[in-house]
Parts: sequence; C-alpha cells; structure tokens
Amino acid sequence: MSASPTPADLSPTLDLAMELMRRPSVTPDDAGCQALMIERLERLGFHIESLPFGDVENFWAVRGHHGPVLAFAGHTDVVPSGPEIHWQHPPFEPCIDDEGMLWGRGAADMKGSLAAMVTAVERFVAAHPEHHGKIAFLITSDEEGPAVDGTRAVVAHLREAHERLDYCIVGEPSSTEELADVIKNGRRGSLGGVLHIKGKQGHVAYPHLARNPIHEAAPALDVLAREHWDDGNAFFPATSFQISNIRSGTGATNVIPGELEVVFNFRYSTEVTHEQLRERTEAILAAQGLDFHIDWTLNGEPFLTAEGELVEAAVDGVEAVLGRRPELSTAGGTSDGRFIATLGTQVVELGPLNATIHQVNERIRAADLDTLSQIYEAILERLFINA
Amino acid sequence: MSASPTPADLSPTLDLAMELMRRPSVTPDDAGCQALMIERLERLGFHIESLPFGDVENFWAVRGHHGPVLAFAGHTDVVPSGPEIHWQHPPFEPCIDDEGMLWGRGAADMKGSLAAMVTAVERFVAAHPEHHGKIAFLITSDEEGPAVDGTRAVVAHLREAHERLDYCIVGEPSSTEELADVIKNGRRGSLGGVLHIKGKQGHVAYPHLARNPIHEAAPALDVLAREHWDDGNAFFPATSFQISNIRSGTGATNVIPGELEVVFNFRYSTEVTHEQLRERTEAILAAQGLDFHIDWTLNGEPFLTAEGELVEAAVDGVEAVLGRRPELSTAGGTSDGRFIATLGTQVVELGPLNATIHQVNERIRAADLDTLSQIYEAILERLFINA
Ligand SMILES: [Zn+2]
Ligand SMILES: [Zn+2]
Repeated sequence: MSASPTPADLSPTLDLAMELMRRPSVTPDDAGCQALMIERLERLGFHIESLPFGDVENFWAVRGHHGPVLAFAGHTDVVPSGPEIHWQHPPFEPCIDDEGMLWGRGAADMKGSLAAMVTAVERFVAAHPEHHGKIAFLITSDEEGPAVDGTRAVVAHLREAHERLDYCIVGEPSSTEELADVIKNGRRGSLGGVLHIKGKQGHVAYPHLARNPIHEAAPALDVLAREHWDDGNAFFPATSFQISNIRSGTGATNVIPGELEVVFNFRYSTEVTHEQLRERTEAILAAQGLDFHIDWTLNGEPFLTAEGELVEAAVDGVEAVLGRRPELSTAGGTSDGRFIATLGTQVVELGPLNATIHQVNERIRAADLDTLSQIYEAILERLFINA
Repeated sequence: MSASPTPADLSPTLDLAMELMRRPSVTPDDAGCQALMIERLERLGFHIESLPFGDVENFWAVRGHHGPVLAFAGHTDVVPSGPEIHWQHPPFEPCIDDEGMLWGRGAADMKGSLAAMVTAVERFVAAHPEHHGKIAFLITSDEEGPAVDGTRAVVAHLREAHERLDYCIVGEPSSTEELADVIKNGRRGSLGGVLHIKGKQGHVAYPHLARNPIHEAAPALDVLAREHWDDGNAFFPATSFQISNIRSGTGATNVIPGELEVVFNFRYSTEVTHEQLRERTEAILAAQGLDFHIDWTLNGEPFLTAEGELVEAAVDGVEAVLGRRPELSTAGGTSDGRFIATLGTQVVELGPLNATIHQVNERIRAADLDTLSQIYEAILERLFINA
C-alpha cells in the first residue's frame, strides 16, 4: 500500500534519486545514470571528461579555476536485485511508502548519495557562483564489480595528468543507526590468499602409504585462526584473519585426498604491512612442516585520514545540520576510497544508513536524503566559504 | 608385440579366464559371464539357483548331498577400464605377452580366480565323483558397485532359506609379492560419517557478527586425527581415522561461511565397536563446543576367522603346492567376506597378486592361475577327502 507522491511533491534530491533508481544499472551497465548526472552538472558549468575503460563508463567533472579541489566520489552501478519475488516493491520502480521509506535498489548504495551531492552543489553554486576552490565529481559504474576499470583506472589517469585532488567525499552508506552517526575516515587493508597444501593421495584402508593434507593442515589452520596479528590502534581495530573457503577430496569416501585448498582474507590495520602478514603466515605454515604454496592478492592497502581540514569540515557540517557530532570509524569493508587515498588525498565516506544494502528490500528514510544534501552543502561551505 | 597362444596351447584355466575377460562386464552388467560359469557347473551336476535382485545377476550353485558346505565366492563384474588409450593391450581383448603376463581387465580382480575355481572343481569332481561334503558357488555381478543387490542380498536369502554354509573361499586378489604369500582371514570394519558443523554466516569485514565454522572445527579435526582409538590386536592393525573430503564456503572470498562439511571413515579392529567409535567421536566434538551433527553409515563390521579347519586347509594347501606357508592378514579394504561371515561361516580370501587391480594395464602372471587352481583343489582335498 504505497502512495507514491507526484514529482511535484518531491524534493529535488528525492526526484533525482528516484530518476536514477529507475535505471537498472547493474554492474557494469550504467543504464543512462551518468548521462543524467552530466546533464545536471553541465548546466552548472562543470567541465566534463568522459573516461571509459573496458566496458566501464566513468567521468570526471570539474567546476572552478583555482584553490584546493574537493571531489564527490561515487558509483552509479548497483548489485543485482536478487529474486524480485522477495521484494515488497519492484526493485527498479522506486516508491516512498506511507511511513516515508524510499524503497528500491540503490536507495542506500548509492544513488541516494549521488542525488544529494548534485543538489547540494546546485544550491551551493547558486548561492556562491564565484566560490573559492574547485568542485569535482569522480563517478564510476564499476564499484560493485571487479573494480579494475572504475575508480582505480580513473585515479591512474588523474595521477598521470597531474590533477590535484585535496579532499574527497565518498558517498558510501556509512551510517549505522541514524543518519551521519558514523563518518568513515579510513579503511583497513585487505589481503587475500589461496593456500595449497600438498599431501599424498591414497586409499583410506592404507593410510601409511598416504599423507592426508587435511589432517596435516588442521593444527596449522588452528594456529592461524588464533594468531594475534596486532592490537590495532586508535583508528583501526586489530587485524583479523578469516578463512572463507576450504576444499579437499575427490567426492569418493574411500580416498585420502592429495591436496587441500584454503582461501583466506586479512583485514589489516596500519600497524602491520602486507609484507609482514605474508611472511608471518608462511612462517607459521613452514613451522608446521607443511608442503605448501600461497597465491597472494593485495586487494587494497589501508588508508587513514586521521585529521585535517576535511575531517574537521565533515564533523562540523554534520553537527551544524543535526546538532550532534558523528563518530569517526575505519570499520567495515573496502571502498573506492583506497584508490583515491593513494593520490595523497584526504578522504572521508559519508552516506545513508547501510542496514539494507546488497539485500532484497533495500530502503532508507526518504527525508534522510534531503538532510544528507544539506550536510554535503555545509561541508562545501566550511571548506570553500568560511575557511 | 604379443604372441597370443591359440586356444589349443592354453590350459583349461587360462582358456576360461580369457573367455570371461572377453565379456565387458562392467558393474552391474554381467555380460554373459555367469551363463558361461553355469554351463560348466551344470555339466558337473551342480544344482543352480538364479538369484537376480534389482538389476544385478547372482547365482547360487550346489553339488553334493551331505556334510559341511564349502562355497567358492566371487564376482563377475569388473571396474571400468578407464581411458583405453592408456592400455598397452585393449582391456577387453585379453592376451598373454612374450613374458607370460596375462593382460586385461579382470585378470586379477577376479575373473582369473573364477576360472581357477571352476577348473579346480572340475578336476576334483572327476577324481572324487562321490566326494564327502557339499561344494557351492556364490557369484554376484555387484561387488565393485553399490554392493547392495549382490552378495548382501544373496546372503539374506540363504539365511531365510536356512542354508548351511560352513566354509567360504573368496577369490579376491589377496597376494602381494608372489602368489598366495598372503591369505586374508578377516577384514577390518568400515564406519563412515558425514559431519556437519554449524557456524554463522557473515562478511569477513565484520567477523564479530559471524562464527566461522572452519576456525571452530580446526582444533577438533586435529584432535580426531591424532586420537589413539585402540592398539589393534594379533589379527588387526590399530583402528584408523581418515578425513576423505572437506568443504565449506560459497566461493566468494569475502564471506565467512555458515557451515562446514567433513566426510570421514574409520577402518576399525575387533577391539572397538562401531557404537564406541560413534560415542567417542561425538564426545570429542562436543568437548570442543561445536554445534554439529553426524550422519553415520556402517559399511561393514569387522570379521575374523582366527583359526579352524578352513584356515588350516588353506595354509596347508598352499604349502603343499608351493612349498611355503602363507601369511595370514586382515589388512586392506572391505570385501564381500563381511556379508558372508555374518552367517557364522569361516571365511578366507585367496587369489592372485593385487598390484594392478582397478588400474589401467591390469595384469598377472598367466601361470599363477594354473597354480591357484591347484591350490583350490588342494584345499578341497584337505576338507573333503583327507579329513
Ligand atoms: Zn557502494
Ligand atoms: Zn574384487
């Protein structure tokens, strides 16, 4: 029973958010979302640079001619809807219910944020057409996918072009209980590994002729799971190790398998390096006498914006709009912030509540998007007007 | 370069063995092997009882009218050939090479034994047409497969019919280095389990909201792998525990899985019961605080023919033919002997060398089959003539 308001009832932010949500832009298909944003930004005098890589659409947009650069960063792609039958409202037909909830894929992650960014800049530019500093947008359609031809490639391009990027607000849904209760000012690193342990295949009736890699690995996996990797620090929780997949065996119940495969992941703080984690992991396995090798993948190094103008402006901006100060946190998964931070940029993530992201029935409080737009505007003012 | 002898050159045992091997009787297809055996046995005055169960052909044949019953037991089915390209000679075109090796699927397991049994009985009956005791054959075409509608079903039928079965020689390839160096006078029990360990699924970035069943299981699996289950005894090696398969994870590298599955198998001696093994396994897992359940499968209880007329006749028969005494052993996998022993029958397994069974290029020394036939005949004489 939803009574969708007519466009005339909608705030500009909600109107734009729902326009974006109607476009089923499952990674990497942008489905026209970026064209819509570009149209709005061009009207404000932004210079647009299209940056397609592979099958991924990206753009970089800038307004202003001197001073520090603040970029709004985000993605137009969304994760698949999952079974539509489990949705109370169709995932790509956004609506606002009687209780003021905005339903649909991308409401929280992160078309709502994109709309709030655009309208915040629209109001800011209208009020301060000759603002100090440069405002930019760094938008990709491959954040939820392989994340290779998206922000990573755009950042490589900006680095080559010697583009300056001082501050970046990523619109990822950082809020947990209420809007803007948490600002992410960093993220842990992510290091993945695929561990192969070799044994010797044989028949269960003749175990003395075989070497069971599952038996041999069990104590080593226990040591890895219990290992104290670090204590974290003021900004990061302790480094954690998790095994995500384990597999061994031919399916036959009378065969001792010849190999075991273990997939694991570190989420790590700035107290250790990925080189140290690799060395310590391999030392533990070697000490157990295992015949092994590991294929490593560094998904992202940790980044941290401990303090500075951006964190200050973000915290003050939230307090000015909501009357309460947000918590700074580095918890949670990786985001494109890891790529942007490599430019030496101060990065924060600030967006809607993340309770329903990547699930069926993704939804947020509709009014939160208007408030979020005010917060983004307040941050712009603190960086470029009151500074 | 094989020069196959003409049938005229072949001994009756090799001639029959190769006739059987030409029939591609991959489980449960008998491919006419049993008809061939039945024809030979009917000529000797055997009474034949066909005992098909499901899609499996079996028969029970008896000759004689009084006294103890000795059955020759075996299977006409063979395991698949595997890639024919890896065979030096086509698997279902048996041949004898220049070095006297008989090549082909079933040479060792166990069409060679079946031929040796038939010709041994043919000579014995010719020499002693009015022999004491009853000679029987218990033949199935489902020993290499599920083993449900084969010997297990025939034994159930014999039990219902109150058939007496005092002695049984199973033709499984028991020899390891040279012919009849080992007689199996028992087999370990086989108890299987599928262990399910429950955790709580989550994201690797939020381990405090999840419970990783791989991490929780590792120390328990280590305890199970190191557990000393018993010391075995004079006839059995110590009970052994082996994990054959382990599986957990969605394939995604950022998800902590919600469940772990572990498939394991006990080969156990007569010093423990399957009930004790179940209880001890579950106690170890419970002591580790795991949320688990186990689906158990009792594949076969251990059996042992420690001593008696059959073991004595078999050992003496081997010594009479070969001038050396065989070793008694209970090592190795299960066989249909486990079903027959439940009738209170004395059971031994005595057959060719097992070095190449279930592999490509299965082969044995051709002359061994003639010797084996003499050994079977010598056992018949010891049980039914010299006794
Ligand atoms: Zn996102
Ligand atoms: Zn066999």
